[in-house]
This record gives sequence, structure tokens and C-alpha cells, in this order.
Amino acid sequence: MANIAKKVSWSSRAEESGVAGERTPLFNGSEQPRLSRQLSGGGSVFQIGRLSTVDLEEEITSDEDSQRGRPKEIPHNEKLLSLKYESLDYDNIENQLFLEEERRMSYMGFRCLEISRWVVCGLIGFLTGLIACFIDIAVEELAGIKYQVVKQNIEKFTEVGGLSISLILWAVLNSSIVMLGAIIVAFFEPIAAGSGIPQIKCYLNGVKIPRVVRLKTLVVKVCGVICSVVGGLAVGKEGPMIHSGAVVAAGVSQGRSTSLKRDFKIFEYFRRDTEKRDFVSAGAAAGVSAAFGAPVGGVLFALEEGASFWNQMLTWRIFFASMISTFTLNFFLSIYHKNPGDLSNPGLINFGRFESDSVAYNLYEIPLFIMMGAIGKNSFMCLEICLSLYVHRPCLQVMEAMLVAAVTATVSFTMIYFSNDCQPLGPEHTEEYPLQLFCADGEYNSMATAFFNTPERSVRSLFHNQPGTYNPLTLGLFTLTYFFLACWTYGLAVSAGVFIPSLLIGAAWGRLFGILLASITSSGSVSIWADPGKYALIGAAAQLGGIVRMTLSLTVIMVEATGNVTYGLPIMLVLMTAKIVGDYFVEGLYDIHIKLQSVPFLHLEAPATSHWLTAREVMGSPVTCLNRIEKVGTIVDILSNTSTNHNGFPVVVQVTGSDEPAKLCGLILRSQLIVLLKHKVFVELARSRLTQRKLQLKDFRDAYPRFPPIQSIHVSQDERECMMDLTEFMNATPYTVPQETSLPRVFKLFRALGLRHLVVVDDENRVVGLVTRKDLARYHLGKHGLEELQVAQT
Amino acid sequence: MANIAKKVSWSSRAEESGVAGERTPLFNGSEQPRLSRQLSGGGSVFQIGRLSTVDLEEEITSDEDSQRGRPKEIPHNEKLLSLKYESLDYDNIENQLFLEEERRMSYMGFRCLEISRWVVCGLIGFLTGLIACFIDIAVEELAGIKYQVVKQNIEKFTEVGGLSISLILWAVLNSSIVMLGAIIVAFFEPIAAGSGIPQIKCYLNGVKIPRVVRLKTLVVKVCGVICSVVGGLAVGKEGPMIHSGAVVAAGVSQGRSTSLKRDFKIFEYFRRDTEKRDFVSAGAAAGVSAAFGAPVGGVLFALEEGASFWNQMLTWRIFFASMISTFTLNFFLSIYHKNPGDLSNPGLINFGRFESDSVAYNLYEIPLFIMMGAIGKNSFMCLEICLSLYVHRPCLQVMEAMLVAAVTATVSFTMIYFSNDCQPLGPEHTEEYPLQLFCADGEYNSMATAFFNTPERSVRSLFHNQPGTYNPLTLGLFTLTYFFLACWTYGLAVSAGVFIPSLLIGAAWGRLFGILLASITSSGSVSIWADPGKYALIGAAAQLGGIVRMTLSLTVIMVEATGNVTYGLPIMLVLMTAKIVGDYFVEGLYDIHIKLQSVPFLHLEAPATSHWLTAREVMGSPVTCLNRIEKVGTIVDILSNTSTNHNGFPVVVQVTGSDEPAKLCGLILRSQLIVLLKHKVFVELARSRLTQRKLQLKDFRDAYPRFPPIQSIHVSQDERECMMDLTEFMNATPYTVPQETSLPRVFKLFRALGLRHLVVVDDENRVVGLVTRKDLARYHLGKHGLEELQVAQT
Repeated sequence: MANIAKKVSWSSRAEESGVAGERTPLFNGSEQPRLSRQLSGGGSVFQIGRLSTVDLEEEITSDEDSQRGRPKEIPHNEKLLSLKYESLDYDNIENQLFLEEERRMSYMGFRCLEISRWVVCGLIGFLTGLIACFIDIAVEELAGIKYQVVKQNIEKFTEVGGLSISLILWAVLNSSIVMLGAIIVAFFEPIAAGSGIPQIKCYLNGVKIPRVVRLKTLVVKVCGVICSVVGGLAVGKEGPMIHSGAVVAAGVSQGRSTSLKRDFKIFEYFRRDTEKRDFVSAGAAAGVSAAFGAPVGGVLFALEEGASFWNQMLTWRIFFASMISTFTLNFFLSIYHKNPGDLSNPGLINFGRFESDSVAYNLYEIPLFIMMGAIGKNSFMCLEICLSLYVHRPCLQVMEAMLVAAVTATVSFTMIYFSNDCQPLGPEHTEEYPLQLFCADGEYNSMATAFFNTPERSVRSLFHNQPGTYNPLTLGLFTLTYFFLACWTYGLAVSAGVFIPSLLIGAAWGRLFGILLASITSSGSVSIWADPGKYALIGAAAQLGGIVRMTLSLTVIMVEATGNVTYGLPIMLVLMTAKIVGDYFVEGLYDIHIKLQSVPFLHLEAPATSHWLTAREVMGSPVTCLNRIEKVGTIVDILSNTSTNHNGFPVVVQVTGSDEPAKLCGLILRSQLIVLLKHKVFVELARSRLTQRKLQLKDFRDAYPRFPPIQSIHVSQDERECMMDLTEFMNATPYTVPQETSLPRVFKLFRALGLRHLVVVDDENRVVGLVTRKDLARYHLGKHGLEELQVAQT
Repeated sequence: MANIAKKVSWSSRAEESGVAGERTPLFNGSEQPRLSRQLSGGGSVFQIGRLSTVDLEEEITSDEDSQRGRPKEIPHNEKLLSLKYESLDYDNIENQLFLEEERRMSYMGFRCLEISRWVVCGLIGFLTGLIACFIDIAVEELAGIKYQVVKQNIEKFTEVGGLSISLILWAVLNSSIVMLGAIIVAFFEPIAAGSGIPQIKCYLNGVKIPRVVRLKTLVVKVCGVICSVVGGLAVGKEGPMIHSGAVVAAGVSQGRSTSLKRDFKIFEYFRRDTEKRDFVSAGAAAGVSAAFGAPVGGVLFALEEGASFWNQMLTWRIFFASMISTFTLNFFLSIYHKNPGDLSNPGLINFGRFESDSVAYNLYEIPLFIMMGAIGKNSFMCLEICLSLYVHRPCLQVMEAMLVAAVTATVSFTMIYFSNDCQPLGPEHTEEYPLQLFCADGEYNSMATAFFNTPERSVRSLFHNQPGTYNPLTLGLFTLTYFFLACWTYGLAVSAGVFIPSLLIGAAWGRLFGILLASITSSGSVSIWADPGKYALIGAAAQLGGIVRMTLSLTVIMVEATGNVTYGLPIMLVLMTAKIVGDYFVEGLYDIHIKLQSVPFLHLEAPATSHWLTAREVMGSPVTCLNRIEKVGTIVDILSNTSTNHNGFPVVVQVTGSDEPAKLCGLILRSQLIVLLKHKVFVELARSRLTQRKLQLKDFRDAYPRFPPIQSIHVSQDERECMMDLTEFMNATPYTVPQETSLPRVFKLFRALGLRHLVVVDDENRVVGLVTRKDLARYHLGKHGLEELQVAQT
């Protein structure tokens, strides 16, 4: 937590708007009690003003930093709200240019657009499936080689002694592979660490996380996840697929790559936040679909995370992308597995077939299942968060990752070594690398099954192996060890998912639970209790549900991965219980992450007890407004003002020759003004002729999404005296609310329409304030009722 | 179509607003080209004015009519938009009373509310499950008795001759049972006819369909559906479950029954449209869940139909209701089937277990599946719609239903009689009533299997019977006959669903297709083509998908009902194809129904080419406004004006002593004004003291949802001179848009927030118009671009 002190301006450009008093002489007429705002709102104008030179300096450093792909450290504090995150425009900017384009477009034009949306979704699904396929085959091949080498070595040394050499071999192999993965993540693209799911959640929510959907991130992510899994860390390759799918979507839908500097001149219509978001949600769904072979689950995931912008046509496109994705993966894997054309086993992880006749459940098992759900681990959370905090320098991160890899290998080896749980090697055994070790011939070490395997296989063997394959002690030890390893691993700077470790831990304790249950009730008629695989499944669901807290989508994902609907009901019950119990103690893992990063995340509804707040108290005020025809110099000055750095400006019109206050007539964004300045769209009043260049929507689209900073645009002194006519470019019909509107109402409008700026007007239609994402995200329901987060500049 | 002429005012009270020029001297300042409005908008004021006495008279008659539960005939014309439908308020009316209540409520209060929402959802699920259980057991028992009687009779007469007596017995039995069902529907509650799914879709969309969620409707629906199914009509009992669930939800959540005049004084907070809608969507989901044993499918159904108001907490509650519903049904059915505690077979219809090993599919089958999807029947639609139109008098409706029942029995009997498709009676046969007829001993007539069975069983036997059970001729004949019977049946005034007949027809032709395929390819290695059950399943999916056009939810429902995820992908492909091909020709069945009833249904997005329309062209204008402190007489006059019958009135404030135009300051509803009038909330200015009674939110809730008509409220001449202060009761922060807002933008705001009235203001915040549901629903995309529907008074 030591880095909170150093929270000055990672990029101060991001402060959405709201504070500054240069132009409009309006004041905040609030007479009602206000929550104290320590760093935000009108009160902080001067404070920020004083810091402005520092800010500028810092910004230059931070820009350099981000060029090296390494942001300033992020304050890990859930009581802060960072201003460094910009918002996305999920509401179309309906200016004249846009409307003209839409009006020019014929019915056939719209049909073509619709068809190209489907094409893009198909492409997204296809590419995501290919990536999943690539990851799977790479992991399978590389891990195969590794296990083969280690197995031969172990077998060689089991007889002659000197197993410590095997241990060293194993540890070194693991460490070096993990090192590779950690280096690319830590040095090239730190955003690729972890599963990427919290980042995608934020993106869909409307928060711009820098570099999250770039090509480089994708490459690093894919290579990183292969290294992590092959390196034997307690991680899965499923979570990162969601991020990968999202990046693919963001790339494909734009018809160009800014990183590769290639523009294919297609899909130009989709170059805006609204359209891009739709495709990104399709990409995320395709990722889930590829990871778990769960297309419906994927759609539901996209729904749960991006619920506010839902729409039937979009649903179907997302569904299509998911289908194509799982289909592609399935098809190529079936070729790889020398069984071309068999499409019955989709997904990166497959739970194997649960034959329902053998493992039916009964009414009296339901309470047991619910009980298991209630064990939704909370301890996991706390641990992993503490651990994830402490190393932030890239070198140290790489070293830490290597250490964890070596420790994992060592612990595994020790466990296997000291285990004497020998099982007969049946004809139908599912282990690919059975280790004999000190067991008799025709037997294998069952602890090794759990450790000496990719986690996916371990999960499957926990679900399906015959009763009696594992003894309780083995399982207990395995659960504990793996739990601690997983926690430690979670905080590393490697690309990796948390799904598989959670499933594995859950399956292990679930199976243990099942075995114990069977042994307790072994006196009577026990056929129904006898199968521990069932309990392994329920345990896995409970553990995963307790950690990620998705109910509906997770149920569907689990059911689709199981391939059997019979377990739907108990899985649902377990997930519901896990969620309810879990929520009582602590939020879900992804939500905690989002909070720790101080992201201004908007939940679906305003906090329950916020009805006594109104727009007047919430809004930022006074607002920097622009005139409809404004002096270029003024615009440049406003945009260059690093102390405010607004992103949206209400446009007002002054009635000439009257001293009435100006009325709201539109809203314009910083990015639009920058494009206008760049193209020198000026009216030179002095020569009394209109030289305003005609701009097209295309000019705005070409600059999207990486608009240049204002510092890079040179405006001469002559040009500063010109005027700029904003009429054509501003959104002439911004949404407005009166000052008395209650917070829940403002929130609903803001969230349902995906707004970025909401203008607050008085009853004469004059601008009195501006509500942005940060103004709303600031309020949250704490233990003692409504709380207000502090706003930090970083 | 003959009844379009008779479309005068079924209830003219419903015209939402928009037209009248009594009070505000504003005019519609539109200068841009307008679409012609033949019966709507400002141009129709006088026309309606002239009809006003007729209207009043008609209204009284129609009131009588509706008391007898029989509305005037509905114009069946898809080019009209009826004004008889009122809208629901899916946006909270945030007046001072409401805000005060919310502000008084503590955090614990909100927690309790949340818990009671869960309790209500649990109750909804439980009751819906019970109803499903009741229907299932009743049908099973009664149909069992019927088939037993007929079977014995047939067996008796097969040997001695005189099977015509059996035919008559069968026909008479069917007719009399169906008569019962048709009588209650036609005479007591015509709204209970059909599946009720279009009505629920409309309700969730925000259109108030009279009497759709009343207790009486539920009772009639349940009895009606039992009679229809037992009477041997080609119908299913699944569709009506959705309606039943919705009625249960609307009842339970209100904590009282207006029909039974009982008020339990609980859940009073939920007595408003917003909350009620959430519960109704949970009820519909619970219905789907009970019908198909598909809880996730249920949630998705509610999502697809009510997508605009989505929210995670709500999703989870809906999911909970669905779970409880399927669980309850499952539990009680397991007791009924003497297998208590076995919960592995949920749902009214169960497709039986598809063992995936035996019926895996392969890549080269995919094109075949897609081809099958493309056969999504459109002919079905056209037929049924023509047929559903022609009889509207209750007596005739009953006679028609009896006729269809008799014909069904006769046709079935003839088919069985002339069929010589004998199959050996294996040890594992699934038919409960195998008919031997003229077959050899130990054999049974396979045509009889298809006809002499509840449709659910027939579907199952088509899916699962061994290859060779049916011969192609039998299947072909069956498909054709059943198809025509189903079409004819669809138009009857009985409670019945279309799911099962569609599935049955689809399964029949699918199986036929499979058999033909097997016989074509029988030369080579044909093991994979050999199982026709697979094709039956795909055929069923294609047929159903082509008719109802739900993609995502239907996929999940089919997968959940199949109990096997393996078929997920082909089912999806088939449903997608069916939808795409189907949409090219004609809309889905439910949408056609909605259109035929001229319901102002709002789709998810504005028509694509509507960008050139703005709020100015769309809005109703001039608007009847009220002053903040208004004379009672004026209010009564406005409310009593049958020629306008507005439901929402902008409240304006006039600056005293100035001649500036009045500014918008709020919005008030007819229902609120009526409650105010009823409670005599007047200020007697003459005596210069405030006698305005303090009203509570409770008074409004007690009157909800059946507000008395204005005619029933007596206001004396003295009282007419009093004033009424609306400040406390009006929604002080109505959503507004400027006149230049484009239609898509207005549409998005309206739809996303579930609005009923949207005030259009000029840049001085003066009211210039009002947009309501009908103003938006009027525009739709026809074959030749944007079209405008005519607005009809009926």
C-alpha cells in the first residue's frame, strides 16, 4: 500500500470534466446539505490549480513511461476513485454530419451494414476459435514434451536413486518457461497480466482502460498464457481467452490496425465507441464459448457484464460469434486429435461425459449440495489480494514468477515422493503420464495424477475416476497445497486464469467430501452416496461460484461443459448459495480487483439510500462552456489547461444584444475539437469570407481512437484570432436533466443510455452543471449507509 | 377482415395524449415535410370531436360488454394502430410523496424490500410449479380414462365389426370435452384463448392488455387447457403455462386480489407498474421453466421478450423463480409417479434421454441440418391466420371447436383404420395404449401410436423409437394430416399452445427425412445415418424455430428439454437458419398476432431509415397542459372530455405578472388526478385557508391498478370553483427532449427507460409537444422503406 503517496497524475488528461471557473459566471446554487468532497467538485479547483505545473511535468514522464509500456504504479485503495480513467462514448454523437450521413443512407445501405455486422461477428468467432486452438495445441505439445522428459528422468532415477536431480530438472524446466512468460508480460505489456476479465468488464461498463484492446496485448497474452500453463503454474488458460476474444473483436471490427499501420478501408462505419463495444462483447462471448465449449454461456457472460446495452439483434450476433468460435475450435481440434469431423467435444476444458444414469441425485442430497455451496471460499480472496500487492518492479516480478514456478515443482515433487497412495493401473485409466515411482508394477502413484498433469486433466480425473482412485489423505493434502500455490500464483505478473485452479481446488475438496460421506454412511444402502465424482463437480461449482460470483452464466457454462443438463438444478442451487453467502462477506474477485484499481465503475443501479441526493449536489459545477462560434485561441487555451482537462464542453448561445444568460444548444467533445483544430477548420472573420473547410465524418473516424494530444497541434498567433463554428459538429440534442432530479433517476438515465456527459440545466435551459461517470461512481453503499469515495488524481 | 368497418371505440379512453387545443395556445411549428397522418395527430381533432357523443354512447356499451367479458371485435389489420390500448408506467413517478417515502426508508428498509422480492419470486415459482403439476396430473388422468374407454371399445368391436360405433364414441367424447373448454373461454374470458404468449409479450413491452393478468383469466386458462388437451385437439399445454405464470406473478406480488376483494396488506410497495412488471417477467420465466423443465431457458425467454429493462439483481430473482418452479413441479410429479425424490426429469414435456454415444453427429451432417432449418415452415402461418379470423360469436366459436374436435377424432380414426403398418410389440415399447386392431397378435398399429396418444408422448416416441418403428408412408400421411389439423385448431377459441403441435409436425417430417436419408445411403457404411430420432429432433427444432422465431431462448429450452448438450450446436444452427430464412418471408407467429391486433408494440430500435424524422414531426401537438395550481372545474372538464381522453398532462408554471409563455415544471397522470379528485384534495381559496387534505402514497396504491373512471366521481358546483395544488403529486423532473432530436434518439430514450410520456420542449423549456408510445410505434419499416401506420380509434 506504500504507493498511495505517489499518486500524482499518471495521466491527468483524463479528468472528465466539471471543475473550472474561467468562462461562465454561473455558480453552484446548492443550498442543501452536501456530502463533503475532499478532492473533487467545485472546492478543489484551486487545489488542482496550484498543482498544475507539477501535473504537466508528471504527464511528460508518464507518457514516456507508457511508451515503455509501463504505467506508474496504481494506487491500491478501494476508498479512492481514480481520475486517470477516461470514459467511452456509448451514446452516439448525433451531430449534423452524423445525421446527414444517416439520412443519405438508403434502406439497402442499412441492410448491407447489418450484413457486414454479421460478417464481422463471424470473423471474430473464427479468429477467436483459431487462437484458442493454437493455445490448446501449443500447450498440449509443449507440456507433453516436458512431462515426457521429466517422467523418463524420474523413472531412470527411481531405480538408481538420486531423485533430487529429477527435482532440479523439473524445477529448472518450469522456472525457465515461466521466466519467458513473465518477461514478456512484465516488460512489454503489463496489462496482459492476469485473466483480463476485470479489464473487459470495465471496458463494457464504459471505462477506457489504456491499451487493453491492442494487438500487442493479444500477442503477449497468448504467448504468456502458453508459458504459464506449460511452466506448471497453478493457473488455467480459459480466463485469458475472454480477453483475447475481446482484442480480436476490437481489431477486426475496425478494419485496420493502428499498431501495424495498416488500414483496409473497410468497416469504417464501425469506428466509434458504440459499435466497437458491441463487437467487443461479441468477442468476449466468443472467448468464453471457445474456453468452455459453452456458446450460450458466452452470451450470458456478455449479458451479465454488459447488461445495460442489450438488444435482440445484438444478442443474436453475439450468439453467432460464440457458435462459430466453438465450432472452429472443435473442428480444428478434431483434426488435431485425428478424429476429423467429430464435433461432440467442444471447448478448451471439457468436463468429460457424466452419464446421468450412474450418477443421478436425490432429494435428500440437495441440502448437502447447498451446504457445499455455502463453503464458497472467502479466504482465497483475502490471501490473493495481499499477495498480489507486493512486487511491482518488472525485474522482481520476473524473479517472483520464477520462484513460484520452482516452488510449485518442488512442492509437487515432494508430495509425490512422500505419497504412498498406489493405485492399480486399470485398462481404462485416463492418465496420460502415469508415474510408477515406488509403486508395484502395474500400479501408479495417484498423487502424481493430480500434480503431474495439466490442470484440465486433473479436474477431469477428479470428476470421473472410479471411486477409490484417490485416498482421502492424498486429496486433503493436495487441496491444501494447491490452494496456497494458487493463491500465491494469482498475484504474479503472468497471463493466467483463475477458473481452472478454482475448479481443481473445488473438485478436490468436493471429492474428499464425497469420500468421507460414503465412508460415514457405508453401513446402510449406500449406492447413491458412493460416487464421489458428483461431489467433485458440485465442489468445483461451489468454489468457482464463490470466487467469480457469476450465477446465471456460470450455471450455463458448467452445464454446457458437463454436457449433461441433469446437474443443472444442483449446480444452480450451489451457485446461488455460494453467491449469497459470499456476497455477505466480500465482493466477487473481479469486483474487488476493479475497486482496488479505483476504477469509476457504474453498477446497474444507484445505491439504495441515495434518493435524498439530487443532480444539484452530484454535478460538477461551474462548467466550462463554449460559444457556438468561438475564438480559436480560447479553445486552444481551454484544451491546453492541464489543471482541468475536461473532455466534454456544453455549447451555449448568447442572444446578441441582450444580457440574458446563455442557453444550452449543444455538447462537443475534446476529441472533436482536436480534430477540428488539426484540420484548421477556422472562419477568418477579418477577411469577411468563409474559409471553413468542409470536414467529413471520415476525418473524425480516421483519427479514432487515438486522438493526438493538444500539445502536438500547432496553432499560430494569427490562427488564434480566427473563429470556429461548432454548429455542425456539436451534438445538438444532448440529454439534460433539471437540477432537482434525484440521483437514482440521473443514474438510470446515465447508465441505460451509456452516457458520458449529462448536462444539468435550470428551468430556463441554462447550463448549471455537468454530471460525469465519476460524479456518479463516487457514491457507494458502505457498511454504514451511503459513503462517498475520494477522488484521486492518479 | 369484415370487421374493420366496425371499429368505433371499443374503449376510447385509451388515447394516450397529444391532440387537443383547448388551453395552451401553442402551435405545431413544424416546417419540415411530414408524413401524412390520416386519422392521427393534430389533423384529427375535429373529426374526433364530431364523433364525441357517439363515442360516449359506444363507451357505455363497451363497458357493459367488457363486464360480460366480451370485448368488441378487434380489427384484424396490420396497417392500423389501435388507440384502445393504454400504456403502462415503467418509469417510476418521482413526485414529492415518492421521494419522501424513499428518503424516510433506512438501509435496513431497503434490505427488507429486497428480501421480500426474493420471497415473492419464490412464491411465484412455487405456485406456478403447482399449477403446472395440477394441469399435468389432470391431463394424464383424464386422458388415461378416455383412451382406456376408447381402446376397450375398439378392441371389442375390432373382432365383431361395427367400428363405426367406436368412431362415434371417440368423436362424441372429444367434442363434449372440447365443448366444455370452448364454452368457458368464449363466454367467460375470451382473453384466455390461445397461448397468451403474445399478450405477455405486449405486457412486458409496456402495453396494457385489458384483463390479461386477472385471476379469472388464470382459472379459465387452466381449465381450458386441460379440456383442449384431453379433448384430443392438436394442441399443447406448454404455451399457456407462460401466461399462467405471469398471472400468478401479477397476483402474488400485489398482496391482494381485486377480484376476490381481499387485501392482505402486504407487499404494498410493489403496487405500481414498474415493480409488477419485474414480477410478471419472473412469472413468465417460471412458466417456461415449468413447461419445459428449462430454468435457464425461462430466464432467456424473459430476457428476449423484455430486454429493455434488464438488471442483474432482477435476472437472479427471475432465475430463482424459474428454479423453484421446475423444482416444485419435479418434486410433486416424482411423488405422483411413485418415485419420490427423483428430480432428474423436470418439465411438463420431456424429450427423453438422448444417449449421446449412440447418436453422435458428424461434420458432414451439418449442411443437412442447416437445410432442414431452412424448411422453417411459412405456409403454416398464412393458413392459421386466415383460419383464425372467421368466427367471432361465442356460440359459433364453441360449435367450431366441437367440430374440430370431432373431425380430429374422425381423421385420426380413419388414418388408423386404413393403415396397415404393423410393428412387433417389443419388450421395451414405450406406448402406453398400443392398439392391436387388425395386426397380428404381438404386434401393434404404429399409426395409432402417433394419433392415439397425448402429443407429448407422440413426440417422445418419434424421437426415441427404434429405427424401423414407423414406415415412411405412415409418417408422411401423419405429417400432412396433423399439419392441417393443427392449423385449423390454432384459430379456435380454446386455451392451447402451439409448441407441441409444431414439435410433433417437425419431429414427424424430420424422422421421415432421416428414414429417407438412411434408405438412400443404405448401400455404403451407414451407421451414422441410421438413427432417425436425431433427425426428428432437428426437424422439431426447425419447425418450432420457424414458427416462434426465438433463437437463444429456444436453443436453451430445446437443449434443456433434451437433457444433452451435444446437440446444442446443430440445434443452434438449425434455429438460426430457420429464423433467417423465416424472417426473409414473414414475421414470427407472435409478432404477426401482435400486429394483427394493432397493438402499439415498440421494437428494440427505431426503424433504420428514420433518422430524417425529428421529435417535432413525431410528437402530438398542441398539448393540453395544466397549471401548477389549477381550478378543479378545469381538471374535471379536461378529464371528462371524451374526444381527447389524455392520460398524461404536462404541468406548467406561469410567471405571475409577466406575459412570457409558461415553463414546464412537471408531469401528472390521469390516474393521479382521479385519485386527487376522489379524495377531494382541494384548496378553497375563497375562505383563504388551506384545507387540502394530506394524501399518502398509500391512497394511490390502494386505487392501483383499477382507477375509477372520471364519470364515477361527483364534483359539486362549489367544488368546481376550488383550486388544486399539484406540486406535491406531479413528477417534478420529467424527461424532456428538444424539438430537433432525431427519432432514433427519442426512441432510444423512450424504450430504454420504459417511458409513457416524453415531453418535447423548445430551448426556453416551454412545452411544444408530447411523444407517446403510439407516436413512435406508428413508424415501421415496410417493403418500400419507412411506412406510417394509420391510427384507429378502436
